[in-house]
Amino acid sequence: MKNIKKLLLALLIVATATFTAFAEMKPVKYVFLFIGDGMSIPQRMMAERYMQLSGQGGLAINAMKNQAITYTNSASSFITDSAASGTAIACGEKTRNGTIGLNAKGEKIESIAYVAQKAGKKVGIITSVTINHATPASFYGHNQSRSNYYNLGLDMIESGFDYFAGGGVNKNDDKKNKEYKGDIYDLAKKAGYKVFVEIDNDDFKKLNSKSGKIMAFGSKEDIPYAIDADDDDLILADYVRKGIEVLDNPNGFFIMTEGGKIDWMCHANDAATVIKEVIDFDKAVKVALEFAKKHPDETLIVITGDHETGGLTLGFAGTGYTSYIDRLSLQKCSINVFVKKISKMRKELRKDGKRLYFKDVKPLIEEKFSLKFSGDEKHPMYVSEEDQEKLKKAFIEKKSFGRALTHLFDNKAGVAWTSGAHTALPVNTTATGKGAENFNGAIDNTDIAKLLKQAVK
Amino acid sequence: MKNIKKLLLALLIVATATFTAFAEMKPVKYVFLFIGDGMSIPQRMMAERYMQLSGQGGLAINAMKNQAITYTNSASSFITDSAASGTAIACGEKTRNGTIGLNAKGEKIESIAYVAQKAGKKVGIITSVTINHATPASFYGHNQSRSNYYNLGLDMIESGFDYFAGGGVNKNDDKKNKEYKGDIYDLAKKAGYKVFVEIDNDDFKKLNSKSGKIMAFGSKEDIPYAIDADDDDLILADYVRKGIEVLDNPNGFFIMTEGGKIDWMCHANDAATVIKEVIDFDKAVKVALEFAKKHPDETLIVITGDHETGGLTLGFAGTGYTSYIDRLSLQKCSINVFVKKISKMRKELRKDGKRLYFKDVKPLIEEKFSLKFSGDEKHPMYVSEEDQEKLKKAFIEKKSFGRALTHLFDNKAGVAWTSGAHTALPVNTTATGKGAENFNGAIDNTDIAKLLKQAVK
Repeated sequence: MKNIKKLLLALLIVATATFTAFAEMKPVKYVFLFIGDGMSIPQRMMAERYMQLSGQGGLAINAMKNQAITYTNSASSFITDSAASGTAIACGEKTRNGTIGLNAKGEKIESIAYVAQKAGKKVGIITSVTINHATPASFYGHNQSRSNYYNLGLDMIESGFDYFAGGGVNKNDDKKNKEYKGDIYDLAKKAGYKVFVEIDNDDFKKLNSKSGKIMAFGSKEDIPYAIDADDDDLILADYVRKGIEVLDNPNGFFIMTEGGKIDWMCHANDAATVIKEVIDFDKAVKVALEFAKKHPDETLIVITGDHETGGLTLGFAGTGYTSYIDRLSLQKCSINVFVKKISKMRKELRKDGKRLYFKDVKPLIEEKFSLKFSGDEKHPMYVSEEDQEKLKKAFIEKKSFGRALTHLFDNKAGVAWTSGAHTALPVNTTATGKGAENFNGAIDNTDIAKLLKQAVK
Repeated sequence: MKNIKKLLLALLIVATATFTAFAEMKPVKYVFLFIGDGMSIPQRMMAERYMQLSGQGGLAINAMKNQAITYTNSASSFITDSAASGTAIACGEKTRNGTIGLNAKGEKIESIAYVAQKAGKKVGIITSVTINHATPASFYGHNQSRSNYYNLGLDMIESGFDYFAGGGVNKNDDKKNKEYKGDIYDLAKKAGYKVFVEIDNDDFKKLNSKSGKIMAFGSKEDIPYAIDADDDDLILADYVRKGIEVLDNPNGFFIMTEGGKIDWMCHANDAATVIKEVIDFDKAVKVALEFAKKHPDETLIVITGDHETGGLTLGFAGTGYTSYIDRLSLQKCSINVFVKKISKMRKELRKDGKRLYFKDVKPLIEEKFSLKFSGDEKHPMYVSEEDQEKLKKAFIEKKSFGRALTHLFDNKAGVAWTSGAHTALPVNTTATGKGAENFNGAIDNTDIAKLLKQAVK
């Protein structure tokens, strides 16, 4: 009797833990899935706090009633990469790190985007990074390696999805590839796509539901970081707004939008740029929310992250119980742009047989990060002798200078990082609209695909 | 029209964000609240992974269907302390860090424990740390400062709650206190409590529902860490089991149980001890789950944390995408016990006019942490020359030697810490039983008190 009780309890626990996956989802005409790459709970909370302190309210993605803690481990690792997590979210099965659209046995698996297409819906895939990067590729591609960009580009064309937008195709003309058949853009055109690379704003404006199948890339590579973008650069929200317009049809649509560069700047441990990317991502979600207001009973919006990146924490040994997230507003460009600027300075001096010294970059650091290398030692942005030495060392040895700088700056704000890679912290999934109540409690990342596949049918 | 739409959207967002707080809770006969001090999502996930890898399944607290992301900020700070968060969870109002049972204006506020008492329920307060520490005190005390232990001890007696158990009273005989009236234990006896300090197992066994009001402390201070405990030491689960027994009555009960030492070892950045504390806490929850099986429609069990401590991340720069949480099993005692042992060695040598050298403690480190200071450099627990130098420096300078050691050891397992204090990462609240469905989505820590006050009425 005791053993039976134990068995029943064990069954109960298993059943409870995976309950959400068996929830019933009804078909929904319009389904939006937003993935913040590398965006877990600390990233969302940090951006929320930044918005609060700067009088911008908070993130729309955090204000949703339905929120689920979401586990991210892959079939091969406690810490997933974006290929395995993208595949889990897109297809509903765990796979090994590095793998796109195949399960752990190497078998092809079907993504929610194909299920939507079969159901007669139009499909849009949008990203701020290159369109054949791991996360977007998980929705149309099948490959043992996420690095086979050209092959994933071929898969993209073969998918026949209706709208690809954001960053362009990586290795589009990879002539050394065994399967090389021509430039991906040319092949896409032959397959009937209207292809725009580095699309200008006028061409972009003209696209509409009568334009046919579209590839609209604002850049050959990734689109600019929000912190670095010019006013006339297309942002993620623009691509979503256009997607809604071009995909409009009586059967509805499925649109996946990735904020891919949140992850990149988490790898670089650059908190200020991450915040701006999360806010930019949130603006894209707001476009879907506006649409949902007009189609309240026909729209489901789900927002998730694929994993945490950087080991971001909202506290730091040096600042204790105090934090100064508002200081992150002092940073004027991404660490990416900053480091490139330094490299350019180095190269130009080298041409003249000269060297770039740390003292020469100090003014630029002071300008872009508001750090103080001299003056009042009590100034909150003053860099101590010890920290100056550390930074100088990283500069001279060309060893993680960017990260040394962001650590120093971010620590002033009371936030810190422990890794240049991903971590195993769960993410949170939030949802609003029809069927959103199924995204609560604790779920697995594969549950997202399982639920959404029911929704797009 | 546009402005009205904007206003409506703004209202909708606010309403959505706080929706859970207005959910309807029906009265429940038996209410358990478990608080893991310093236990946020990373702590729970790390212990979960450890259990999986050691074939112990997972945590009962993580297997619950209802889970809510819970914001923890206090009235005075983005990063709360245990007094402000304890008060928020107990009373349902934000207050300033350091304050117990008063709101931000300094007014007395009522905890869920008093609401339960007024409703005719019996009340139990259990903790693994001292019973007048911030978290338990938030349920019975009112004081501008959490450090006024003696005064909080007086509040404890005045509460008239039925069962106080776990760690004893801090500063119980604080003769210098302005309000000193005698030893807290004596005063409690005069007030009608049966008081046991360092209770032995036989006395403990004898306690039952006819014993009257009880204070049963296993120690004068905190109870031992799970990793250091002897087999016959009472553990948190024992105090919960006894609480259920002694509080049994027709009107039901409210029991608050704190796993208080999770926090302490997060402050010390000791991952292995944290894991054992979380598992020990989970065992205490399992006692309530067993009870709930017998009273399925009359029991609500809620588990939360009051904040994150330590900036714990499940990844580390040096281990990248790989983690080895199972290596944490190699640690044989808490860093607390280890550091005390070193101090004792130092003192004893000093008596003879001798000094303790780093080389003398290496064998002890090797024994208790399985780190290798010599031999195969490729051994995963081998300590590099550079790391040995760092550790030696911390030892000689007596500057955070314990933390230097836990960082070194924990990093081998692929986990890392960024702070010796708390951080602002949200926690998760999980629940099971009657009304548990109200603990979903995103909630504020004050919502827990608001919901539970309805439940105990």
